[in-house]
Amino acid sequence: MDYNAFFKDELDGVREEGRYRVFTDIKRHRGSFPQATRFIGDETQPVTVWCSNDYLGMGQHPVVVDAMHTALDECGAGAGGTRNISGTNHYHVELERELADLHGKEAALLFTSGYVSNWAGLGTLASKIPGCVVFSDALNHASMIEGIRHSRAPYKIWSHNDVEDLDRKLSDYGPDVPKLVAFESVYSMDGDIAPIADILDVCERHGAMSYIDEVHGVGLYGPRGGGVAEREGLMDRITVIEGTLGKAFGVMGGYIAASADLIDYVRTFASGFIFSTALPPAVAAGAAASIRHLKASEMERARHKDRVAQVRRRLDAIGIPHLDNPSHIIPVMVGDAKKCKMISDWLMDNHGIYVQPINYPTVPVGTERLRITPSPVHTDGDIGRLIDALSEIWSQCELARMDAVA
Amino acid sequence: MDYNAFFKDELDGVREEGRYRVFTDIKRHRGSFPQATRFIGDETQPVTVWCSNDYLGMGQHPVVVDAMHTALDECGAGAGGTRNISGTNHYHVELERELADLHGKEAALLFTSGYVSNWAGLGTLASKIPGCVVFSDALNHASMIEGIRHSRAPYKIWSHNDVEDLDRKLSDYGPDVPKLVAFESVYSMDGDIAPIADILDVCERHGAMSYIDEVHGVGLYGPRGGGVAEREGLMDRITVIEGTLGKAFGVMGGYIAASADLIDYVRTFASGFIFSTALPPAVAAGAAASIRHLKASEMERARHKDRVAQVRRRLDAIGIPHLDNPSHIIPVMVGDAKKCKMISDWLMDNHGIYVQPINYPTVPVGTERLRITPSPVHTDGDIGRLIDALSEIWSQCELARMDAVA
Repeated sequence: MDYNAFFKDELDGVREEGRYRVFTDIKRHRGSFPQATRFIGDETQPVTVWCSNDYLGMGQHPVVVDAMHTALDECGAGAGGTRNISGTNHYHVELERELADLHGKEAALLFTSGYVSNWAGLGTLASKIPGCVVFSDALNHASMIEGIRHSRAPYKIWSHNDVEDLDRKLSDYGPDVPKLVAFESVYSMDGDIAPIADILDVCERHGAMSYIDEVHGVGLYGPRGGGVAEREGLMDRITVIEGTLGKAFGVMGGYIAASADLIDYVRTFASGFIFSTALPPAVAAGAAASIRHLKASEMERARHKDRVAQVRRRLDAIGIPHLDNPSHIIPVMVGDAKKCKMISDWLMDNHGIYVQPINYPTVPVGTERLRITPSPVHTDGDIGRLIDALSEIWSQCELARMDAVA
Repeated sequence: MDYNAFFKDELDGVREEGRYRVFTDIKRHRGSFPQATRFIGDETQPVTVWCSNDYLGMGQHPVVVDAMHTALDECGAGAGGTRNISGTNHYHVELERELADLHGKEAALLFTSGYVSNWAGLGTLASKIPGCVVFSDALNHASMIEGIRHSRAPYKIWSHNDVEDLDRKLSDYGPDVPKLVAFESVYSMDGDIAPIADILDVCERHGAMSYIDEVHGVGLYGPRGGGVAEREGLMDRITVIEGTLGKAFGVMGGYIAASADLIDYVRTFASGFIFSTALPPAVAAGAAASIRHLKASEMERARHKDRVAQVRRRLDAIGIPHLDNPSHIIPVMVGDAKKCKMISDWLMDNHGIYVQPINYPTVPVGTERLRITPSPVHTDGDIGRLIDALSEIWSQCELARMDAVA
């Protein structure tokens, strides 16, 4: 078989569907993010990033950067091993304590990414608890789906955020069947938020464990940045809280927080945890500094809310359609992969505005969008330029507008 | 079901088998590694690390640490997104070029860890190429096994390093069946090396793709640190070379290097790649600096070989049994989980020598061992203290010795 010809053919198919991904090559500017430099061959272009998941700009916060410099000088670059074989650095231990405290849990466990924490966390619980059945929200993230699939445990998909459907599906199993209900707090691409309290009511009624993915919630919601579940006073009712250090906390890595026994169990049996080199000490130090800062400081969250509200208001004023949701994510719907990419390219080439087109497999075909993520580091001037540019391209392409509301 | 009682019971079982893992909490000292500080509650203890996979001590090399400081100041802490959504930093692009060049391949693709590169690389190829059959060496690493298992492709396990068995198993499939042969160069726990040329002969005869895991080879073998396959002049005959940035290169992350089309194919379809936040720019910068340094400098590899030879020679001189192998890994066999842990604890408590006991599931039950990894940063004094301490505990416990050979 001619393998390379096969790869080429498949890639041609992706290109024809308009969903071939060209990565935008940038250098973020510490100290002036969202400003960045884009590299195109030998040329460069100044750009403003409007699609980062560094939601609060913590990736350039002095407490984070300083903590990383210090740990780098103290401990060097890498951890030097898996957690079990010389790779546990004191910074990991401190970070795990910080995370357990953030979520009011007995313990926490670090992974190299949020993807791995979901994949290994869900995968281990579902595969190792004999007879466990998983109940997965229909719009769960790829990492959760892959973890569940990998476990080979039986699973049921319940309609997105539909508590009655979850209740019905749980009712099919007796009280002795171990059950694991997996869902997210903030759904990344639509920005909607789960009815967490109602889901927990149902879980408790059926004796099911609850597993919440708060990767788009931690740092951003709750008085100490514990996530939507903290804001709603629900953390103590959730079995496992999963989060990331790579979005609002601005660094990298993932984790789960839960009871000491559950954490020890996953620590002992999760292949993706056991056999991975630990995070660099400097990464752990930076993440811990970020969490500590956001536990005490409300300023970033307040300014974040203000920026999000201002972008929404100004989009409404010029009638550019965006999904209504209660979160910080602003999806401007386009609904066509090629058009979405064309608008994105135009914004970049003409205005140095970087909003990545989001297409399949990240969102379903036909729901392609520009996903705008305002942050505390976007100025009024940045917002003005974004709105003017969107208005211009919407007119040029005669894209549909809604009635302006302001 | 009482989930916590279940977790507790399972952990008690692990404890009874003597294979409950307590992570050793240390701070490595940049500038004087392998020296480190161990934390035990409120106490600390100075220790010498003898079990790190920072094989060359590059984790504290000034070119690596300086590159990380510079990138941290330039770009900040995290990448801020997946590679597709604002997370591609110019340092990633440069690192991927460096890796492609290291292996003489057209392209390379970064992952957040070596585990993920194997899991996603093998998993994507095996699941997405219709009818693909995987042929996996019996001692392949957990990350490869999980990737193959996850793909749900049919697979055959061939006897470890047994080329004739591989040949027989490949012969069961016609020339039109896509085939993927997966193996390692240096096997981590026994330190033996695969007969790469013979394996490639067989792969070529059967029209199979070859996938080699060089995580314990890169940086260490070959004139530019391209791995065992570089040393043996075989890189151009291998379809996919997988490696890590977290062992000899001293930082963190994993990668595959291959043809441009294959890399583009995995980039486009691998869930574990698409949906993960990219490595921090500083991590990419540090890894690239490490690779560049080791392409040009032979000093670290020469001194590494010398240290390994000296430890072996001195173990032989006192008759302490270690696995004979052609690599840098020195497994001192104990064969019992509890005894292995007891020796390790004694070395730590009495001599501040840190050699992690290696037990199940990392090695089969009954083959528990101390895995010693000498590095260029271990002095003659460090080696002397290790040998004296081992000799003392071997006498105290009346452990078997071989005839001393020197």
